[in-house]
Amino acid sequence: MEQLATNMCFGGEHRRYRHRSDVLYCDMEFAVFLPPVALGSGARQVPVLYWLSGLTCTDQNFMQKAGAQKLAAELGMAIVCPDTSPRGLDLPGEDDSYDFGSGAGFYLNATREPWSRHYRMYDYVVTELPSLLERELPVTDQRGVSGHSMGGHGALICALKNPGRYRSVSAFAPIANPSECPWGQKAFSGYLGGDREQWAEWDATLLIPGAKERLPLLVDQGTSDQFLEEQLAPDALADACEKAHHPIELRMHRGYDHSYFFIASFIDDHLRHHGRALGLV
Amino acid sequence: MEQLATNMCFGGEHRRYRHRSDVLYCDMEFAVFLPPVALGSGARQVPVLYWLSGLTCTDQNFMQKAGAQKLAAELGMAIVCPDTSPRGLDLPGEDDSYDFGSGAGFYLNATREPWSRHYRMYDYVVTELPSLLERELPVTDQRGVSGHSMGGHGALICALKNPGRYRSVSAFAPIANPSECPWGQKAFSGYLGGDREQWAEWDATLLIPGAKERLPLLVDQGTSDQFLEEQLAPDALADACEKAHHPIELRMHRGYDHSYFFIASFIDDHLRHHGRALGLV
Repeated sequence: MEQLATNMCFGGEHRRYRHRSDVLYCDMEFAVFLPPVALGSGARQVPVLYWLSGLTCTDQNFMQKAGAQKLAAELGMAIVCPDTSPRGLDLPGEDDSYDFGSGAGFYLNATREPWSRHYRMYDYVVTELPSLLERELPVTDQRGVSGHSMGGHGALICALKNPGRYRSVSAFAPIANPSECPWGQKAFSGYLGGDREQWAEWDATLLIPGAKERLPLLVDQGTSDQFLEEQLAPDALADACEKAHHPIELRMHRGYDHSYFFIASFIDDHLRHHGRALGLV
Repeated sequence: MEQLATNMCFGGEHRRYRHRSDVLYCDMEFAVFLPPVALGSGARQVPVLYWLSGLTCTDQNFMQKAGAQKLAAELGMAIVCPDTSPRGLDLPGEDDSYDFGSGAGFYLNATREPWSRHYRMYDYVVTELPSLLERELPVTDQRGVSGHSMGGHGALICALKNPGRYRSVSAFAPIANPSECPWGQKAFSGYLGGDREQWAEWDATLLIPGAKERLPLLVDQGTSDQFLEEQLAPDALADACEKAHHPIELRMHRGYDHSYFFIASFIDDHLRHHGRALGLV
């Protein structure tokens, strides 16, 4: 694990690292915010919120734009931002579009050639990266997971597929039913092929009926989000939750869009939601 | 004034505009944050903090990275971020370096060819832009000014040269004595020529002895700032203030650098400083 940069922030530290991923067969970069209590003499290990970003993002968008460090520093919570895909593999078509390949890993394990060897972001964010961090950094195995858009989808499926692994989950404007929207269909066809039964393993709305743990979902959605109608489908997720008696708080925010100005406006509510589950509030 | 975009944020609105500048002879873009009390029915006009950004920045860096909107929304303060120079003029050398020309207007009025016709960012940010906004947006003529690095220099000289025009001034890591550092010498030579008496009109440290108004300066500086030694010289400014009995609070923050992670960590203190002077706290 090579440290690329560090910036002091609200008494804690924002750091960037590069490491070799054995799961993705390439070098990966990620960012971490460590709160003041995790640093210096008398430091203690702290729980972690994993943040999964959306299409086109890197490890930096959330760290630079969400304004989450102030409350995370107060709560004593680490935040980890992985990248959104493997990079620089020279696979055919890897860099041809914003919604497939680089920057668009969709937090699944690809089964279709040529993606299946490298595009295993699910294994990376659920298993490999936490194992590495819990070994190398002052963080515990108490985890929350959240994300935005493609990363909101990622957060939901990571939690739903792994009972006991996360204490809490939330999402901003998630792609809540990817099997039924253009972004999801393009990604699932490309990474998984045409078998819709395979798709269902990576679709939060379709995972709800079989969920083995009733972890409450906190989902924020702006009503002026330019992708709400065509791509996001929070109602489908809420309907599935209602049928399955799975707890969800879906908050519709009038006038808010898909940007980080929306995320910044409500991130503190999410940090407190995770902080409560992680024993920090 | 053409509105380019709007995003709801903390109950207020972040907007971007384009307009024709009569002072700069080109189109300019800027961003504004309007707090909730300035919007909708029963809205009232609010005072403005002008934020001047640093080298290479546009109107967007502060809006996306500083995390200022939450407290500005609570206080009822508008924030305006101008761009950092004229753009797209095809002047020879305009885009050759990060510290001169585009993105590096230095908030002065150039006197040297070919810059003197367009590079008049001082007149633009002190006079033209506020006049436009006070006519077109729900903001008052009660103004504060702040900025970072080149923009910290800008904030200081705008306030020092215009007694009565600003209620408050502050700066993050300002280029406090530009006549004596490489960034300032390159800019002043290029925009003003070799006459150091002209330079002194645009150098905060050299303006302090003749300042006609004792507006207190709030200056934050990180001790791990990579530009502190060679470019910034906060001690020169503080020494000049001490000699002239000009009030300054220079806060040295151990371990902080030149980035927006530093600015975000202390922006709320600056907003309160301006809020007090603007009657909002």
